[in-house]
Amino acid sequence: MTTPAPVTGSVILVGAGPGDPDLITVGGRRAIENADVLVTDRLIPTESLDWVKPSARIIDVAKVPYGRSTPQEEINRILIEEATAGNQVVRLKGGDNFVFGRGGEELLACAEAGVPTRVIPGVSSAIAVPAIAGVPLTHRGLTQGFVAVSGHLPPEHPGSQVAWNRLATCGLTIVVMMGVKNLAAIADALIEHGLDPATPSVTIAEGTLKSEVVVRARVEDLAQASRDAGVEPPAITVIGDVAGLDVLG
Amino acid sequence: MTTPAPVTGSVILVGAGPGDPDLITVGGRRAIENADVLVTDRLIPTESLDWVKPSARIIDVAKVPYGRSTPQEEINRILIEEATAGNQVVRLKGGDNFVFGRGGEELLACAEAGVPTRVIPGVSSAIAVPAIAGVPLTHRGLTQGFVAVSGHLPPEHPGSQVAWNRLATCGLTIVVMMGVKNLAAIADALIEHGLDPATPSVTIAEGTLKSEVVVRARVEDLAQASRDAGVEPPAITVIGDVAGLDVLG
Repeated sequence: MTTPAPVTGSVILVGAGPGDPDLITVGGRRAIENADVLVTDRLIPTESLDWVKPSARIIDVAKVPYGRSTPQEEINRILIEEATAGNQVVRLKGGDNFVFGRGGEELLACAEAGVPTRVIPGVSSAIAVPAIAGVPLTHRGLTQGFVAVSGHLPPEHPGSQVAWNRLATCGLTIVVMMGVKNLAAIADALIEHGLDPATPSVTIAEGTLKSEVVVRARVEDLAQASRDAGVEPPAITVIGDVAGLDVLG
Repeated sequence: MTTPAPVTGSVILVGAGPGDPDLITVGGRRAIENADVLVTDRLIPTESLDWVKPSARIIDVAKVPYGRSTPQEEINRILIEEATAGNQVVRLKGGDNFVFGRGGEELLACAEAGVPTRVIPGVSSAIAVPAIAGVPLTHRGLTQGFVAVSGHLPPEHPGSQVAWNRLATCGLTIVVMMGVKNLAAIADALIEHGLDPATPSVTIAEGTLKSEVVVRARVEDLAQASRDAGVEPPAITVIGDVAGLDVLG
């Protein structure tokens, strides 16, 4: 029996923040500059691709090997293969790797393969995109917390693990991510279970970028208003009294 | 009638991240380096104080003018006064200024005084501290979102706006901030309203720093286990199935 040689490469999970390249962390930028292999995704700041060494390879797993999306198992396999070959691998994701970013799955796969890992968290779009649009998720006197929830499944979907009926009256700001196409169903579910239909809400598309679009409406009208404004994914919706604020004045 | 002269200074709200100085953003670090006045707080990375210009002034509003905490109105007044005097002012807070950071209040006060503002969000401790300890707040198959809630008031307190009875069965990860002294009351309230007493949970003190302490227990036992481990504020608690994971392997 021989023990396999220890892996000399490693995988660093880096959160790229919400889009503005200035919103990546100092440590994240340094990791990108030192990477041998950068495994990227949709929604990363394109400027970050210029920060790599000339010898570095960039693997866009949103696009390879075929079609627009790579299965997670294939991404895990690439991370492990590249690190095992001795490379310093950076896995760069938009926002933060642990807010709907499947970072946990990637770390577990690496751990199982004996690949050393490190985490450099990023600025989450859930918080930063509203803040830059003038909407604080928490505000003294209005709310003592927030909920960040995936809207990629409609409330009636059998795969949904979200108790929208509980969220409707939880007293906290609700931030819906990946919910553009289900906005009407989500608003209906919340209102049916007790949320005031006049609750302020806002949808922000292309957040933190010059192309940002901000749509404000009562929650009962938000889906229609967002459609009228031509909002397309990715976008973030905030529901709650704080969405009625514009702290930028 | 004369119009007041336009304010030539400005206030930039910068999130300093959870403690590790590498977790401040590139833009945040640059703002600190260019600041004439840095208005700081508890929980910022002490290294960031070395990044200012030699001519810059540092005002620690956690300590001045007397006692350990400055009223928010006094902080607002300092920000406005310094910017009106023509200074580039950076307001630096631990974590993110909009997650229990009173950033919204500071921006509103500045807007009212005609002071230009800008926001550079930070890495929120709510997300980053668990991630670095191996706990992803969202994880495919386990949860489709998370709640970040202040635990500074016990559930029975008349000032609490948190519907803990709803959160108990909302199906999402619950992150409690500023809750060390109320952990037992919060766990009791959640269990009384339907949360499984065996739900995995974890409290992390001094997160992202070398001095980090991680206490894992069933939610019904967490307060006692945290006391036994000598956990002191600031600390972050995560309640939910993801708290049973250690994705760092």
